Amino acid sequence: MPRQLYELCGADPTRVFSPYCWRTRMALAHKGLAFETVPWRFTEKGAIAFANSEKVPVLVDGERSVADSWAIAEYLEDSYPDAPSLFGGPGGRAMCRMIGNWTESALHAGLAAMIVADIPPHLAPADRDYFVSSREKRFGKPLAEVVAGRETAVTEFRRALYPLRTTLKEFPYLGGAAPNYADYSVFGAFQWARCVSDFAPLEPTDAVHAWRERLLDAFGGMARSTTASEAA
Amino acid sequence: MPRQLYELCGADPTRVFSPYCWRTRMALAHKGLAFETVPWRFTEKGAIAFANSEKVPVLVDGERSVADSWAIAEYLEDSYPDAPSLFGGPGGRAMCRMIGNWTESALHAGLAAMIVADIPPHLAPADRDYFVSSREKRFGKPLAEVVAGRETAVTEFRRALYPLRTTLKEFPYLGGAAPNYADYSVFGAFQWARCVSDFAPLEPTDAVHAWRERLLDAFGGMARSTTASEAA
Repeated sequence: MPRQLYELCGADPTRVFSPYCWRTRMALAHKGLAFETVPWRFTEKGAIAFANSEKVPVLVDGERSVADSWAIAEYLEDSYPDAPSLFGGPGGRAMCRMIGNWTESALHAGLAAMIVADIPPHLAPADRDYFVSSREKRFGKPLAEVVAGRETAVTEFRRALYPLRTTLKEFPYLGGAAPNYADYSVFGAFQWARCVSDFAPLEPTDAVHAWRERLLDAFGGMARSTTASEAA
Repeated sequence: MPRQLYELCGADPTRVFSPYCWRTRMALAHKGLAFETVPWRFTEKGAIAFANSEKVPVLVDGERSVADSWAIAEYLEDSYPDAPSLFGGPGGRAMCRMIGNWTESALHAGLAAMIVADIPPHLAPADRDYFVSSREKRFGKPLAEVVAGRETAVTEFRRALYPLRTTLKEFPYLGGAAPNYADYSVFGAFQWARCVSDFAPLEPTDAVHAWRERLLDAFGGMARSTTASEAA
């Protein structure tokens, strides 16, 4: 059986948009491991119960199934040690984890508040109600109201990118000369936004934008060629 | 001539308290390189003019003088490649830089607002006026007012440690099994606070506190044995 990656997608199975699934997608490409996508939707909990998970990504690799993007990254690094290191060697593992954790606190909430209302139109009908009601409960208001201030909120979001921007003015990637899993962790957040929303979180003059362009081009343009909503 | 490190200190030359000097101190110890301290004070610009710098740390290593903590870290890594790597190998350099940049944005401002008023009493008389007037200008109010809300502000500060705390629940150090320059960059901020203030920024139950304890014990307790104000 070929390697399989269960990925969150919209009604269109080529609209793959989970930030965590993007981390895994890029990690598999980095390791040079072929995989086929199994499109998965929020309401298909049963389809991944075999992996003891209610969330994707789930990777099935031969006899093994692994859920959770970080667990998958560690699994890939440890199982395929001869392929290029995801972490820049053993000394980089915890730093990659830290930068992933930073992404979640500094980027995910801010991005969600700018793009969440753009997601439902892309979802399969069965997912739409689940998504809207769970997210409205989380934010405590209608999704249209959540994103209403995004033209202003984006300024604060861009400011929060300071540590990333400053680093990318000095190095092409967080991995240094080539990208590593820290890059993919941050990139996943931007790719999530790009795949569902035409709202541009980055200014074209931003060093972070130039870095995102490089990652869109990586691995034969894998991330750029996926169905997306942002024009750039 | 022995290797020399110009370090910011108070009236007491053993009260070394710059967060950036601590990064360098720990880096030198990590590389196993002996050095002697040259106490330096804010108003002694002339003493480091030879290094084309107005700030410490400045390292003098044989014929070379290097200013700026990051430049020193890169210099040490490149000049002493056989000593333990500061960055966990070449793939970790940019990640260390990123975590240092994160420290500056997430920790330095928050810590300064809690401890800045505790610094002047430790300074040499010539430094005191310079420090108070430059910092009051920066904050736009008397230093006593800056720190007035610290019992409340510390909650927000601790919240900002989320990416660090989450990582340290999983790994003993940002470097993984052993500390690296990312650890020293973050540790420098806490050591700065500890050396000048008795205000405790961390709760004893915090995973970040336990990690700080390990770094206070590192290198024969170098950081713990330095003159400090925090009791713990």
